[in-house]
Amino acid sequence: MAKSPLPPALAAFVAATARRDMTGVAYAVMLLGNAAMVLLTLDAAYAAAHGWIYALLCGCLAFFVAEWGIRVQAAVRMHQATAYLTSGRGLVDAASATAVPIALAAGVEPRTAWLLAFAWALKVIPGVPGLRRLRRVMVVEARPLLSVLVLFLLVLFLGSVAEYTLEHDVQPATFGTIPSAMWWAVVTLTTTGYGDVVPITPLGRMVAGMVMISGLGVFGLWTGILATSFAAETRRDNFLKTWELVSRVPFFASLGPSTIADVTQMLRTIDLPPRATVIRKGEPGDCMYFIAAGEVEVDLPGKKVRLGEGAFFGEMALLGNNLRSANISTTNLSKLLVLDLVDFRVLMARHPDLARSIDAEAQRRALENRT
Amino acid sequence: MAKSPLPPALAAFVAATARRDMTGVAYAVMLLGNAAMVLLTLDAAYAAAHGWIYALLCGCLAFFVAEWGIRVQAAVRMHQATAYLTSGRGLVDAASATAVPIALAAGVEPRTAWLLAFAWALKVIPGVPGLRRLRRVMVVEARPLLSVLVLFLLVLFLGSVAEYTLEHDVQPATFGTIPSAMWWAVVTLTTTGYGDVVPITPLGRMVAGMVMISGLGVFGLWTGILATSFAAETRRDNFLKTWELVSRVPFFASLGPSTIADVTQMLRTIDLPPRATVIRKGEPGDCMYFIAAGEVEVDLPGKKVRLGEGAFFGEMALLGNNLRSANISTTNLSKLLVLDLVDFRVLMARHPDLARSIDAEAQRRALENRT
Amino acid sequence: MAKSPLPPALAAFVAATARRDMTGVAYAVMLLGNAAMVLLTLDAAYAAAHGWIYALLCGCLAFFVAEWGIRVQAAVRMHQATAYLTSGRGLVDAASATAVPIALAAGVEPRTAWLLAFAWALKVIPGVPGLRRLRRVMVVEARPLLSVLVLFLLVLFLGSVAEYTLEHDVQPATFGTIPSAMWWAVVTLTTTGYGDVVPITPLGRMVAGMVMISGLGVFGLWTGILATSFAAETRRDNFLKTWELVSRVPFFASLGPSTIADVTQMLRTIDLPPRATVIRKGEPGDCMYFIAAGEVEVDLPGKKVRLGEGAFFGEMALLGNNLRSANISTTNLSKLLVLDLVDFRVLMARHPDLARSIDAEAQRRALENRT
Amino acid sequence: MAKSPLPPALAAFVAATARRDMTGVAYAVMLLGNAAMVLLTLDAAYAAAHGWIYALLCGCLAFFVAEWGIRVQAAVRMHQATAYLTSGRGLVDAASATAVPIALAAGVEPRTAWLLAFAWALKVIPGVPGLRRLRRVMVVEARPLLSVLVLFLLVLFLGSVAEYTLEHDVQPATFGTIPSAMWWAVVTLTTTGYGDVVPITPLGRMVAGMVMISGLGVFGLWTGILATSFAAETRRDNFLKTWELVSRVPFFASLGPSTIADVTQMLRTIDLPPRATVIRKGEPGDCMYFIAAGEVEVDLPGKKVRLGEGAFFGEMALLGNNLRSANISTTNLSKLLVLDLVDFRVLMARHPDLARSIDAEAQRRALENRT
Repeated sequence: MAKSPLPPALAAFVAATARRDMTGVAYAVMLLGNAAMVLLTLDAAYAAAHGWIYALLCGCLAFFVAEWGIRVQAAVRMHQATAYLTSGRGLVDAASATAVPIALAAGVEPRTAWLLAFAWALKVIPGVPGLRRLRRVMVVEARPLLSVLVLFLLVLFLGSVAEYTLEHDVQPATFGTIPSAMWWAVVTLTTTGYGDVVPITPLGRMVAGMVMISGLGVFGLWTGILATSFAAETRRDNFLKTWELVSRVPFFASLGPSTIADVTQMLRTIDLPPRATVIRKGEPGDCMYFIAAGEVEVDLPGKKVRLGEGAFFGEMALLGNNLRSANISTTNLSKLLVLDLVDFRVLMARHPDLARSIDAEAQRRALENRT
Repeated sequence: MAKSPLPPALAAFVAATARRDMTGVAYAVMLLGNAAMVLLTLDAAYAAAHGWIYALLCGCLAFFVAEWGIRVQAAVRMHQATAYLTSGRGLVDAASATAVPIALAAGVEPRTAWLLAFAWALKVIPGVPGLRRLRRVMVVEARPLLSVLVLFLLVLFLGSVAEYTLEHDVQPATFGTIPSAMWWAVVTLTTTGYGDVVPITPLGRMVAGMVMISGLGVFGLWTGILATSFAAETRRDNFLKTWELVSRVPFFASLGPSTIADVTQMLRTIDLPPRATVIRKGEPGDCMYFIAAGEVEVDLPGKKVRLGEGAFFGEMALLGNNLRSANISTTNLSKLLVLDLVDFRVLMARHPDLARSIDAEAQRRALENRT
Repeated sequence: MAKSPLPPALAAFVAATARRDMTGVAYAVMLLGNAAMVLLTLDAAYAAAHGWIYALLCGCLAFFVAEWGIRVQAAVRMHQATAYLTSGRGLVDAASATAVPIALAAGVEPRTAWLLAFAWALKVIPGVPGLRRLRRVMVVEARPLLSVLVLFLLVLFLGSVAEYTLEHDVQPATFGTIPSAMWWAVVTLTTTGYGDVVPITPLGRMVAGMVMISGLGVFGLWTGILATSFAAETRRDNFLKTWELVSRVPFFASLGPSTIADVTQMLRTIDLPPRATVIRKGEPGDCMYFIAAGEVEVDLPGKKVRLGEGAFFGEMALLGNNLRSANISTTNLSKLLVLDLVDFRVLMARHPDLARSIDAEAQRRALENRT
Repeated sequence: MAKSPLPPALAAFVAATARRDMTGVAYAVMLLGNAAMVLLTLDAAYAAAHGWIYALLCGCLAFFVAEWGIRVQAAVRMHQATAYLTSGRGLVDAASATAVPIALAAGVEPRTAWLLAFAWALKVIPGVPGLRRLRRVMVVEARPLLSVLVLFLLVLFLGSVAEYTLEHDVQPATFGTIPSAMWWAVVTLTTTGYGDVVPITPLGRMVAGMVMISGLGVFGLWTGILATSFAAETRRDNFLKTWELVSRVPFFASLGPSTIADVTQMLRTIDLPPRATVIRKGEPGDCMYFIAAGEVEVDLPGKKVRLGEGAFFGEMALLGNNLRSANISTTNLSKLLVLDLVDFRVLMARHPDLARSIDAEAQRRALENRT
């Protein structure tokens, strides 16, 4: 509301930054800056253009200093300065802005000091879509994952001691100490197998074979825990996101709560930009749509019909004639709920009342379009 | 309908090609052509028979040019020329037909130019049975897969910077630049572990161990997402394919829609050529069959009974006597729905009416056969 | 019934062999014979004791010839000679008996000829418990597994052509032909990574990185398909095995068919030898047992009670007092159905009538034991 | 009750040790001792400080001797001496206490003798949280896992014989005997791929490729069995742990047994120390809590309300207003049952009576807080 002295794009950027979002610009600067940092380690690139590279890096640094400044200021304004500065995100922002200058000021050689720009890459972490889910998996499955880790470390330790005992006389250079044997063990247990350290005695090789097979076992457990748990979290997330939207569609609101829970587990949400084609005439149809937010336009012969929030479409291709009968596209930013053919049939079978009301609407529309 | 001047086999081939199918001939030509292309890189084979190899390659090329021609012509006739030429399949067809000639015309050395024949192999992609399913998995699970990819890249980047810092003084040849360290990181994170680049400092090895364990974690997530999602897609596909067929079997048509949804989830479809033996007398039986399309012949003592679309058979072995009592084989191309013993029992338990009608039919048959 | 001129142990062995079972003796001979074959390749062992080794191998060979003879004779007696000789098992038996003698007769050097004894190891295949299940997985999931294989081969081929193009000038010894590049590709795609062939150009390394990541993807799909399908098959097998037994227990027979289907999915079968302790007094109990076949003895203070087919026990520890109150052991070979505490509770919740009859029996017993 | 001559901390430690628990002190001693043992193998550390290291090791040994003594004494007092001494735990304790002294007494070189201190690490096994679960998986899935192992060994054996035959003339040093070829096979089948032994003939490489692909297949089965079974065990364990607690919450006790089974499958238990914050005001809420044991304090404006065993809280954020309205923290060691938003909704939909009583309580509280 307040009159801003900044041009609108810049103002929008400052606002987004203050909200602690990563803007598209910030992603671009991060990628550019880290690419420049990588270039700095190539002698050829350094010799040819180190001036330009340093200029680019300084520009990126300036950007992150500004970003940090905006965020600190915004936090101070909202009396959350301490909370922000000590949060993970705040620490990454601070490191991004200050690590390199501090290192340079401390007299570290520039090519080394700029390596600290790796902190910029950490800024993407909060933006990774599935990370919240992953963190929940870690919390919920902490005990089984810890068990697997302890097993891993135990096999690692016992394998190392065994190989040290069996091999250190024959290969003192590679198995001469337990830490060296541990390096072999971790490379083997993870099935990486560099081959820089390899047992050569028959007994050592038998122990190694057992360590490898244990590696597969540990790996199997690890995969199993992560896979099962991640799948469950994904279902949870979808349920939560969809439930919100289902309650906005009047068609579902009339159903009992147990049907709604059923429906929610079957629907999938998609977000579409304006003017995106949802259905193309003549293509085979395998799902129907409910509009949770936004609007679509049905391109019927001779007229254009608009369907708003709460309407559904695409049901005709599921009720008999398999091909889509009209083009349908969004008019503005829309959120649609997708019901797949499989789930459509299961749902119709379980809830005949739902089937009847969709049927009735479909017939009404068919009649209307014919006239 | 139109009188064709071509022999029937050729006409069928042209029609299939125009429909953009891969015919058996096309697969054979593709395999032969690519084998010839591989041979070309072997000096011994080249020296001994490069004339023959080039002749074979030219023949294959002529085939793909003809194929492209037929498809372009068919597309033009159906006013879809632009759509075809810009579709993925159209681009592959165009590249298969023109890439090598263009390279040769541009003066590229023949042995190098013919390497472009690799484009022929891309023609199999649309024919891979599960690929549509895989693409759907990619769309539905795009966000989690992207998260895992970002995590992978982040670990890759941070691991590379760390190893570069720790190892580049000791091993300037292999860890001298961040891109070299990245090569190490990707080889390690995927647990490939060539061993051409290996950290040797104690700290470098500890970081490497952490990168390997992260590799297992990322891998576990990746496997988990793909596994869960692919399994769900497989169930969906089976349901859709089976639903179509179940509705054609009169025996099921009389059931309520919720029973049909139940049954559909239990049945499995199989396609059989003519004269294939479905049931062999005296073998233990663990499933029954419904005929969705085609016909089977029951080889009873003294007479042969034919069962057509909608009939079922093999139920007797599930109802008590465990061994099959007659040979049954198809008379022409048939589509059968298979109901396994486990599902048969669960289904009979849940739907007693179904159990009664199958029982009645089985008794009628037993009586009939006795007389 | 016929008077046998052989001692009983030998007669039993001949009968088992005629039934085409692998006896314990056959397993031992196979292991011994293959161990001897391995020893033959060790120069030290050969020099020290090749007389003994050959004698052992000849003994094993004589055993397998005798085994084959018994089976052929039994098959001839049952008029199944052709069926047996052409079956997979028959071919392995024939190869085990004749391959080495034929090779020796053909003048092959003995140490090489005896390598054919590897055929003996194939005899274990029909005895591997889960193999039937694995074969069913292969049949049911043939199409998705084939898709993954085609994808694997396509990535393999395209990766090889790309690396050949990028590396063959720089490393003619290792990437000089497409087949050599394919060796690299298969080693990389399976994440084995020997490191004998490694790309060194920057572009070659980027392609290699993509091949590795594709390897993880293909692997994930492969694991996912096998894992899901194998789990389903295991459930099927258990259901079938258990269903048979449940119908023999009168306690369950009185239940409706849908409850039986429920119960069957929860029970697990175990086979116990005579005089095996099932329950140990004072231990915490987390399951109850139903006797499908055999007999158990309850060791009550002052008396011993025998429970026969159809009885159940161990329910008291689930109904309140957590510790087992008596020792219970089998008197002869028994088949028990195990119901875990979790499933017990779910089952009792769903079927109150079942709960009541188990409760009544438990109270009757408690009373009886008190008096 | 008896007056103890020991200071309380020491007495608690002795009591815990007698109960055969691993105390925090024991973990620390184990870690220290094994770290010292590792140091002993480093020549630099040995030269610089072997006196200190030996002193540390002797201290650790004394600790484990004392621990063993306390446990033996306690076992003797409870007349379980033989049971304890022959149990796995007893054997590990005995080995930890006596292995090193015996070796030293037998004249083994000290640096080698102390390697036997690896037995100390085995003491963590009984404490690994998920190990009981893992052992159950091994028992329940013994047959499928055994099948996979037999397949693995069969592929290993056949692959070795094949590679020996194909490669032993070309590479006598690495493929000269079948045991050497087996080393190659195990390294390859587990996809470890050291690269120390690599086939070089074209046929040998094709066989190797097949072995690698079989490795992926075996691995996939292995992962699948472990993953599915471990997930099932985890659900079982949670059910058992939660069931116990659910029955203590009066709110659930009034429900029918089938609802309780439902609820139990949805709840998750967490253990919290005193003064832990459960809910932070203003944060978005996605779960509600039931108190199974302990007490929490609700920090309302102007007053503090305590909720004891059987109460629930956090439901308001699920019933409409998404943000938590008060800080809630534990007052002493508490066990809470967590019901996630997703499950809350499904549960409310299935059991409207439950929904009504939670609603009523929430309204009562809202009224109370307003006044």
